[in-house]
Amino acid sequence: MSDPTTDPSISSFVDVDATSDFPIQNLPYGIFRLDKADRPRVGVAIGDRVLDLAACFDAGLFDHPALEASMPFHQSTLNPLMSLGKEAWSAVRTRVHDLLRDDTPDLRDDADLQKEVMVDRDRVEMLMPVDIGDYTDFYSSREHATNIGTMFRGPENALKPNWLHLPVGYHGRASSIIPSGQDVRRPSGQLKPDEDKPPIYGPSNLLDFELEVGALVGPGNELGSPIDIDDAGDHVFGLVLVNDWSARDIQKWEYVPLGPFLGKSFATTISPWVVPMAALDPFRVDGPEQDPEPLEYLKQSGAQNFDIELKVGLQTESMDAPHTICETNFSYMYWSVAQQVAHHTVNGCNLRPGDMLASGTISGPTEDSYGSMLELSWRGERPLEMPSGETRSFLQDGDRVVMSGHAQGDDYRVGFGTAEGTILPAK
Amino acid sequence: MSDPTTDPSISSFVDVDATSDFPIQNLPYGIFRLDKADRPRVGVAIGDRVLDLAACFDAGLFDHPALEASMPFHQSTLNPLMSLGKEAWSAVRTRVHDLLRDDTPDLRDDADLQKEVMVDRDRVEMLMPVDIGDYTDFYSSREHATNIGTMFRGPENALKPNWLHLPVGYHGRASSIIPSGQDVRRPSGQLKPDEDKPPIYGPSNLLDFELEVGALVGPGNELGSPIDIDDAGDHVFGLVLVNDWSARDIQKWEYVPLGPFLGKSFATTISPWVVPMAALDPFRVDGPEQDPEPLEYLKQSGAQNFDIELKVGLQTESMDAPHTICETNFSYMYWSVAQQVAHHTVNGCNLRPGDMLASGTISGPTEDSYGSMLELSWRGERPLEMPSGETRSFLQDGDRVVMSGHAQGDDYRVGFGTAEGTILPAK
Repeated sequence: MSDPTTDPSISSFVDVDATSDFPIQNLPYGIFRLDKADRPRVGVAIGDRVLDLAACFDAGLFDHPALEASMPFHQSTLNPLMSLGKEAWSAVRTRVHDLLRDDTPDLRDDADLQKEVMVDRDRVEMLMPVDIGDYTDFYSSREHATNIGTMFRGPENALKPNWLHLPVGYHGRASSIIPSGQDVRRPSGQLKPDEDKPPIYGPSNLLDFELEVGALVGPGNELGSPIDIDDAGDHVFGLVLVNDWSARDIQKWEYVPLGPFLGKSFATTISPWVVPMAALDPFRVDGPEQDPEPLEYLKQSGAQNFDIELKVGLQTESMDAPHTICETNFSYMYWSVAQQVAHHTVNGCNLRPGDMLASGTISGPTEDSYGSMLELSWRGERPLEMPSGETRSFLQDGDRVVMSGHAQGDDYRVGFGTAEGTILPAK
Repeated sequence: MSDPTTDPSISSFVDVDATSDFPIQNLPYGIFRLDKADRPRVGVAIGDRVLDLAACFDAGLFDHPALEASMPFHQSTLNPLMSLGKEAWSAVRTRVHDLLRDDTPDLRDDADLQKEVMVDRDRVEMLMPVDIGDYTDFYSSREHATNIGTMFRGPENALKPNWLHLPVGYHGRASSIIPSGQDVRRPSGQLKPDEDKPPIYGPSNLLDFELEVGALVGPGNELGSPIDIDDAGDHVFGLVLVNDWSARDIQKWEYVPLGPFLGKSFATTISPWVVPMAALDPFRVDGPEQDPEPLEYLKQSGAQNFDIELKVGLQTESMDAPHTICETNFSYMYWSVAQQVAHHTVNGCNLRPGDMLASGTISGPTEDSYGSMLELSWRGERPLEMPSGETRSFLQDGDRVVMSGHAQGDDYRVGFGTAEGTILPAK
């Protein structure tokens, strides 16, 4: 039976443009407030409006027992909702869909109720949607890993021996994950610009972005009990865009042998609207063929990748709008989210509601599909030409980076909004 | 002016043996309850007793305004107390010291009050003392880094070029940090026992411990605002023992190029009593000379290391008690906690109350002072002889590892209790 919440033939009574990220087939969740004095709560984006789920609940529009018990809409994070699991998510999504479709009168024909439970999207402030306990960053794009490996070790040794056998990943810093729109301070630290001289202290000169997608965990697992790959879907609530800001010079000097640390931990930006997995179901596609065949615990069935078009725009201080410098697709990922979940927990490691598993930089096969400045400018050897006449090898102060993405349906798109941030000069 | 709370000449009316970890000069904080139905709350260890700070507060024994506002003793973690900062910590410590000394009558002479606010330590269950938001693991023992480097790269290239210039560290997994006493399930995962064959799935065969000390953060810093090394002490609440359990075979195959991941994330054990920095002040010592001289932001003044004797005991299933296999000292650390704090935040990364900065394995200069099985058995080339007649290169199922430590004063010691755990067979 097909899911009515993703049926392309159903519309909302709220006007939604064909290029809007938020049609009735999407219904992403976020945490919003009207101003600093207002209480943060859960909302769903629909066109240019936000449906206030806390107000809907207060108006008696929900009657699911799990919601009465935990009151997940009156919270400042999505974690309580995420921890409820698939059955509750489905009930909430179905009810929200019912309320918003143009062939049901309850909300459509009640102007007072609409005033009570809906607000214009440009009036709200979006906050961090999730309290992220642990943030894991994978390295799952073969094109990205090959590009980086080629630059630093040559094309023959581009991929390390483990790369085709497991989704390589590392623990990231959770405290410095920030919501879209918050400025990013250029980090300072130890750099070694001259191979033959001692390291120096100073601001990073090789500031970069990394275009990623983050999977947010719903119900977790007990310590010591791995998640079977066939059950991975029950543990993932939704996806966000991620900018894993990176200081390449800090990273290069520090990262041997224990991996990235201060080169990344100064900021990681996520988009504020969490797109539920249910909305992305129609956009499932097969990933790249995996050769060698993965070990049994990483063998997946069905289409586990997602056809999500991704874009990075760069706007310098002299420009009026972002200029697209990268177009790629989430479907290029070699290792799927399901495989990441299974691998992450195979040793018994426990995931908790709100944990984020980021994909790693998503690069495609062509030079305009690379997901970082390091690759786009090929270590600065091919600076990018901006429409302003400027060039960019890495990010300069005042530069604004805007990531966006959507899955394209017929006459509608399931989109993510943006993950964006502007570089402030070093202190 | 000397601090009365560390004055060796002052005793408590509670009997404290000279070999007890918890004399009146220590006063470590923990979270305890009497049984599963009981509410977790803050206690202080004194000899074989626990002073119940929530009960003390309820009995009107505290009158500090910050305590009235945040009620930190009636909480299930130390985070609220830790976030209050040095002035409040000092007030609490001074008051607890006053209550417990043998020359003040208030609690000493009131048997009813004693019953209300004290409980035998063997009657309480100790819980996780802290909600650890982010866990960072450093690699700050020169002896350990040299041992590992020598094993894998030979003595000429033992230390990587960055090691003497900065405290190398990486992000650890926070979700799988567990309190002392909880069993540890042997992890399974990808291993590559045969260099010439593909990897296999199976239980780790090279299970290890790592003896570490963890510094727990009190007040944090704003994102973008580094902590000056001279202020680092204001941000550290206290220390715990840490066992950074490690699966060497999983680690070896996975860790290039992004660092340790599943080889560590299955479990990390911490001791339940947090020893306040104030109690360790008399045991400050200079660390090893640092050559080359560190960059300005890592230059410290005063004695920043701590003379804390550390010990690891190993007990197999056939033994009645742990056998000491390692004796080392926290003072061997090349990079101090203050330097770790300054380095961690130099890029603007924000620390939060409850974050843990672990030292990395603490190895000393002699073969019996190495802080891991990997080093003690030198990759299995020199198996350890146990008093039971058994040998051990790595940990076997049923093995119990007991870490302990204390700073030795004249006729008293400021101790940590134990961080211990027993290995369960793989699932």
